[in-house]
Formats: sequence, structure tokens, C-alpha cells
Amino acid sequence: MNLDEAKKELMSLQEKIAAYGHALGLISYDGATTAPKKTAENRGRSMGVLSEELYKLQTGEETVVLLEYLDANKKDLTQEEARMVWLLLKEIRDLQKLPMDEYIAYQKLLVEADDVWHRAKETSDFALFEPILEKIFETSRRFAGYLDPEKDPYDYWLNEFEEGLSREKCDAFFGTLKAHLVPLIKRISEVPQVSDACIKGDFPEDKQEKLSYFLMKLIGLDPDHVGLSTTEHPFTTSLGSHLDERITTHYYREDVSFSMFSVVHEGGHALYDTGSRDEYAFTVLDGGVSMGIHESQSRFFENILGRSRAFAYVIQPELRKLFPEKFSHATVDDIYKAVNKVQPSLIRTEADEVTYCLHVMIRYELEKRVMAGELAVHDLPAEWNRLYKEYLGVDVPDDKHGVLQDSHWSGGMIGYFPSYAFGSAYGAQFLQKMKETVEVDRCVAEGDLSPIRNWLRENIWQYGCLYKPSELLDRVLGEPFDPMVYVAYLENKVKDVYGID
Amino acid sequence: MNLDEAKKELMSLQEKIAAYGHALGLISYDGATTAPKKTAENRGRSMGVLSEELYKLQTGEETVVLLEYLDANKKDLTQEEARMVWLLLKEIRDLQKLPMDEYIAYQKLLVEADDVWHRAKETSDFALFEPILEKIFETSRRFAGYLDPEKDPYDYWLNEFEEGLSREKCDAFFGTLKAHLVPLIKRISEVPQVSDACIKGDFPEDKQEKLSYFLMKLIGLDPDHVGLSTTEHPFTTSLGSHLDERITTHYYREDVSFSMFSVVHEGGHALYDTGSRDEYAFTVLDGGVSMGIHESQSRFFENILGRSRAFAYVIQPELRKLFPEKFSHATVDDIYKAVNKVQPSLIRTEADEVTYCLHVMIRYELEKRVMAGELAVHDLPAEWNRLYKEYLGVDVPDDKHGVLQDSHWSGGMIGYFPSYAFGSAYGAQFLQKMKETVEVDRCVAEGDLSPIRNWLRENIWQYGCLYKPSELLDRVLGEPFDPMVYVAYLENKVKDVYGID
Repeated sequence: MNLDEAKKELMSLQEKIAAYGHALGLISYDGATTAPKKTAENRGRSMGVLSEELYKLQTGEETVVLLEYLDANKKDLTQEEARMVWLLLKEIRDLQKLPMDEYIAYQKLLVEADDVWHRAKETSDFALFEPILEKIFETSRRFAGYLDPEKDPYDYWLNEFEEGLSREKCDAFFGTLKAHLVPLIKRISEVPQVSDACIKGDFPEDKQEKLSYFLMKLIGLDPDHVGLSTTEHPFTTSLGSHLDERITTHYYREDVSFSMFSVVHEGGHALYDTGSRDEYAFTVLDGGVSMGIHESQSRFFENILGRSRAFAYVIQPELRKLFPEKFSHATVDDIYKAVNKVQPSLIRTEADEVTYCLHVMIRYELEKRVMAGELAVHDLPAEWNRLYKEYLGVDVPDDKHGVLQDSHWSGGMIGYFPSYAFGSAYGAQFLQKMKETVEVDRCVAEGDLSPIRNWLRENIWQYGCLYKPSELLDRVLGEPFDPMVYVAYLENKVKDVYGID
Repeated sequence: MNLDEAKKELMSLQEKIAAYGHALGLISYDGATTAPKKTAENRGRSMGVLSEELYKLQTGEETVVLLEYLDANKKDLTQEEARMVWLLLKEIRDLQKLPMDEYIAYQKLLVEADDVWHRAKETSDFALFEPILEKIFETSRRFAGYLDPEKDPYDYWLNEFEEGLSREKCDAFFGTLKAHLVPLIKRISEVPQVSDACIKGDFPEDKQEKLSYFLMKLIGLDPDHVGLSTTEHPFTTSLGSHLDERITTHYYREDVSFSMFSVVHEGGHALYDTGSRDEYAFTVLDGGVSMGIHESQSRFFENILGRSRAFAYVIQPELRKLFPEKFSHATVDDIYKAVNKVQPSLIRTEADEVTYCLHVMIRYELEKRVMAGELAVHDLPAEWNRLYKEYLGVDVPDDKHGVLQDSHWSGGMIGYFPSYAFGSAYGAQFLQKMKETVEVDRCVAEGDLSPIRNWLRENIWQYGCLYKPSELLDRVLGEPFDPMVYVAYLENKVKDVYGID
């Protein structure tokens, strides 16, 4: 093998991986959007085969030889090629550290866990989920030991899910948030609540769909490359490459804001993915680099832009046109306040901008203590409920609306939650930076977001997975990450909406 | 390798083939239904990779060794296993007979041909398509020579596309049809035309969609396993296995009958596929055995049942409910006559039941003569137009509405068309046989088609690809195929609709 051939092979390998990803992604997407009801087993069979073929391709002898040859000749690779090799090798090297039988047993455990969790959630029966969740936490600890014996297991997973994170960083971050947000939420509860009457009512689906396409156009999604479908839970997926992107939403007839902000949130994910350099298509550099950076983009569009006063101003005419009975008398201020109503609640995914991070923080604290052996899985529900009362002031009626609400733990994703909160906070600091050169509010009010998109594309989107999240952050911010920027952003919002400091 | 292991490997091989088929089928289906406009290239890239992987799997050394081992031990295989091995080996053995460079060159030619044909059709420019069509006919002849040097090339392809067919059979079949249908059509043109006013008008899409679901239920499709989408050109596809089937339709606002009969036609295909024995799922025995048998089922539901008087009777209440302004005064007889209006036309896919086979016959005659070297590709348009005038009495205004209308030749499918006509004729003979034990008209009029479905499942559907088409026909009919049964069926229909013999 010579280097030129190996470089060509590297591209061909990635094209194959992308094609399998396309197939697997589309089969899932089809299941969530279009497939007849009782076809899940049929899909499972095909996905089982294709995943195994992909796994063989990614970790097979031929691939390992190729990547190690390229890695040994790293000095002759471009920056892009070197990063591709690193990303592809990482997965192989991690797998090599895990005893194969334990790895396979864990994959099977997770399939079972998904089923058990669904049933446990449905019947609000934590005892049913408890034994399998114990095994998941135990495996998570054990695998971290294989993968990096030097590191604390929870630190290992935090850094895996969002490169750069650790307990120390999370403690500092959530400590700051807690110190400011818990009292802030208490102060909000002491003043008169704002009204969200204009966004509640009866909103026919066909009109909400028109609103979706209006919003997609407004934020700048290219309809030739980004599609919209409806699903139970909204999500975003790339098929093959960023050149075919799909977002989904869910229409609730009685609340126009759910789908509205779903579209803008998923649209933010899609803008990030589709902003990758075109030459990254069908390589591992294509699309967003991490969950944290991804959420920074989706929540930037959803909250920072989407819940701004300027956004309320620019969407008001469309809302009036589509739903005159609800919006003909609603002022920009009415809309702005309605979509920024702060109200502590039970479910993370339905939380407002201010209380959201506290939901995440509770999960972080619990995970950390279980991973450290300071809290038994058995005691998770009681601790969950106690923390919801302490931080958010709400009483959890049952585990379905409490500790069983998220799918992450049943999927083995312990250490994943913090990236949601960090993403939100990154966004606030990006805004601060962006405002040095872009008149953000004016762009939104004028309905021309291209200067905002150009800034994000220039600084973040174009790079795909070229830089590690921490490197990317350094490049964009040019200063350390500072959670106080986020706190200040939230306090300012609350001041504007509720008139309190 | 021992036999038990080899049998297991055989099942595993087929499961893999099915999974790739699932992925490729779904990517196509997505392209036709949901995908954003400019994503075809992205899909093409993934499909290229996956097709190549599938090809390697189907024809690789490991597969060949396995299949030849099983073939050598045929006496110890079940009937099902033996048929699986035969079907899988056939493709490999055919490929082995073709010079690889010529095969690859032809695949590339066909990709180009598809593009050229689209452009030629759009601009009605046969000269643009002519050189590549010449190459396709030439390759078709040459490949037939490699594949079976003993056989006439056109006979070879007729038998490939529908096992059992030959020029001799086609000549006899089309000769009979021509002798009866051409004069019949002439007689129709001499009596007053029936009215199709009730099916023309303004039919909103959402109501047509309701009608689609009503029809799917009426003919007995299981909504848990059969989905409906909309596409430019309706089709049916199985994804992975018959347990996940999709049909599509197209709604024309001004004509309610197009989608109505599309749904019933594609529904017939879907019933056939989904009627396979469940244990055939993820094997090569799953789904319909040939194009001809498939069309016999789709056209049985579309025409023999769907355009019967009993069907008009059973759908009338639904049509009145959905479209009162058009159907409140339309009698069963009005509906029956409207959907059976015979009118010679230019486009095969829009032809009525009586003229349909003449469209096919024209293609057959032209293919036969070009393959025999008796007609130059250059002269196809003139001959096409002459035959349309002779058989159907219509003047072809341009090649777009003439020789360029079908995609089959650009796809290399020379010898494919006759199976459409044979399928229609098989259906009429199935009906005759079925009527010995099933009161077909009464079942339809009562809206309970289960005795009809049971007969078809029992005699045809359950077997999937277990029997060759000719064997299946023998088993079902217990007598030779007789085109006069079809002619009599059509003459009877015309007598009923137009009152002429």
C-alpha cells in the first residue's frame, strides 16, 4: 500500500460508512414518520443485519491495517485526513479495550432495558426498571475502568459525551446556575404571572403546518435539502450526508407554540448540520461535532432568537394571518411574554428556558452520586422527588412524571445530560460574541437572518467535526467559557418579561 | 461445512440480501415520497455503495461455495430450500456467462440512457435517444447470445421476464386478441359513447384520501402492515419482507377515478405480496413470483373486481357521502359505465381495459422486429405511429406521446411488455376458475371480499416464489391457458356497457 492509495481507501471507507448510516438512519426515520404500525420487528431485522455489516466494516482487519498505516504516516496527512483517521481509530481502539463477551452482553442488556423502561414508564413502576438500571450503572463504571483506568468513571463518560467536561467543570457550572436561578425562580413565583392565552386555543394542523414552512424559510433552511415530517417526538437527522437533512415536529391542536419552537429548535440542528463544508459530505467530518455544540445551535435558534422580542415582532403578521381569532388583538408584547412564561414543571422536555437547566442539574447530581457509590439506584426516585421539590418547588406525583421520564439511562447514556445545559450556556456566550459584529435584534426584526447565519457558518458550522468541541469553543470565543454570561442572559430575560431583577 | 450448517448459512445469506433490499427499496421509496427536491445525487451515492455491497454478497466466493455445496446435496434439501438455492444460483450463473467488462459497460450505459430518455421525452426528440437505444437493443441481442446461444435472443428475454413466454406463444396470444379486439373497438366507435361525467369534476385531495382508506379496507389490506403514500407515478414495494408493504397513489383533483383505481391496482399487488407464507419473510421466496402473475393480481382487483357492476354498487354510498354534489344523483349504472368507458388513446398507462392490450401488442411487435433485425431503431417512431393508427385509430402528435412514453427500453427491459397483457388474461381465467366455488359478484356486492382473498391466497399468494410461473398457472388452472377466456370476458363487458356484441 502506498500513501496515495491509502488516502483514496480512506475516502472510500468513509463513503461506505456514510451509506450504511444513510440506510440505518432512514429505516429509523421511516419508522417514526411513515411506516405502518406493526412493522417494527421487520425493521429491527434489517437494522440488525446492516448494523452488523457496518460494525464489521468499521472494525475489520482491512480497516484496522489501513488506519494504522495512515496513523503511522500522520505527518504526510492534511489536517482533515488526520482528524478522519483519529475519529475512525478512536472507536476501534475503544472497542479493543473492552472484553468482547462483556461488550456483546451489554448491547443485549440495552435492547432489553429499552423495552423494560417503556413498560416501567407506562405503569409508573420503578421497581420493574431498578434491577436493569443497576446493571447499567455497574457496567458504565466497569467499562470506564477498561477504557481509561486512570480516570474517575463518571469523569470518563462526561468527557466522552462532551469532550472537555468533567465533574469539576460541571460542579462549578451547575453551582453557579443553582446559586442564581433557584432564587430567581422563587422571585418570579412572588410576582403576578404573565398570560399565555394567545398561544393556547384551537389551532388546526394544516395551518400549523403552514406556519412551520414560514418559520423554516425565516430561519433560512434550504427546502431543496431539508424536509419536514411529523413524529411523536421531534428530532433531526442527516441521511447519508448534510445534503439531505430532515426535521420533524408534532402538532398539538391546543397549543401553537409547541410545534413552533420544535421547528425552530430542530431547524437550528439542521442549519448546523447543513452548514458543513460540502467536501465533508460522506466523510466522518460531516455534520455537528458534539451534542453540546449541537444543542448550543438548536437552543440558540429556539430560545435566544426564537423567544426574543424581535422574533415575536417578525412572526406576528403571519400568526395574525393564519390564526386571526387568536392573534388579531395580541400585541408583540403579548406574544413575547406568552412564549417566555416561566413556570416550574415536572417534565424536562416541556420546561421553559429559565427552569430547563435545573432539570438537567438534578440528573447530573443524581448520576454523579450513583456513579460514586454514594447513592443506591434503589433510592433514585426518592432523591429525584426531593430535589424537584427543593430546586423547582414542585411535587412529583409518580415516577412516570419523575425518575422514569427520560430514555437516556435505559440507553446507557450516563453522563449525557450535562451537555444539554452546557449547550444552552455556550449559546449565550456565542450571542455576546456575535453582537460585537452583528446587529442581531435588527436582523431578526427585519426578517433577514443571513448575517447571523453567516457568522455561525463562518465560526462554527463549516468546520463540521474538524475541531474537538473544546478547540472549537476556544476558536469561537477567544476567551474562557463563562457561565455568568448565560446567567446574565437569563436574568435579563426575566427582568424584561416579569419586570424583576 | 456440514449440511445443517450450510442450511443455516443459506437462511442467513437471504436475511442479509433482504436487509440490503430493504435499505435500497426504502431509499428509492423515500426519494419518490418524502425526500427534499435536490437530494437525488446524495441518494445515488448511498445506493451505489449499498448495491455494490449487495452484489459482492450475492456473487462472492463464499456465497458461490455455499450454494454449490447445497446444490450438490439437493436431494437432502426441502422443496423450499432447493428453490432458494436455484433462484440464488441462477443470478450467479448468468453473471458468470457475461464478460465482466461488457456487463459493467452496460450498467453504465443504462444509467446514461435513463437520463437521455428523460431529456428526449421532455423535448419529444427521438433523435437524441436513438443512438443509445440502438446500443441497448444491440447489447440485449449480444447478451442473450452469451446467456443461451441455442435460443433466439428475443425468445430468451421473453422467457426471462415471464417464464414460459416465447414469440410463438405471444404471436398466438396477440393474434387472438387482435382478431377480436380491433373489430370490437371499431364497433364501439359506431355506437353512442357512454358518459363519464360523474367521475370528472373537482375532488379535494383530503376526501380522495378518505376514499383511498375506504378502498384499502374494502379490498382487505391490513393497515398494520400496508401503508399508503402519494407519488408522481403510483407503485408498490415491499420493505425487507411482505410484513412491511407500501402502496402509493396520485390524486388528480379533476378525476376521482385515477386514484381510486390506482389504489385498487396497487392494493392487488400488495395483497399478493403480503399473502406470502410468513415463514418466507426475509428469504428469496417472499413476495410475488413474476411480473405477469403480479399484474394478474393487480389487474384482477383493479378491473375484474374494481370495474364490475357489484363494485360500483358497493362503493356508491361512500362516493355519495364524500362527494354528494357529484354522486347524489349518479346511479350504480352511471358509475359502472363511467369507469368502463372505452376510448382509444395515446398513452398505455391511461388506457381503458379493452384497448390496453393493443398498446402492449404494438410494443411487442416492434420489439420483435427490431430484435430480429427486420426493423431499424431509426424507423421505430414511424412504425409506432402507423400501428397506433391501424389498431387504435389514433394519430400520434409527437414522440413524447408516442414511442418515447415508456421507461422500459431505456431501462434495458426489452421483452418485458408482453407480461402486462398476459397478466390481464391470466386474471380472466382465474376468475372463471374461482367462480366454480366462489360467488364473486355477491361477495363484492356485500362488501366482504374474504372468500375471494381466501381463494387467491390458497391458490396463488401463499406460495410466493416457490413455483415457477408456468407451474403455478398449471396448478391454479388445471387446464391450458386460453386467451379466448379473456376475449370473452372483454366482449361480455362491452356488451354490458355498450349493449353491443
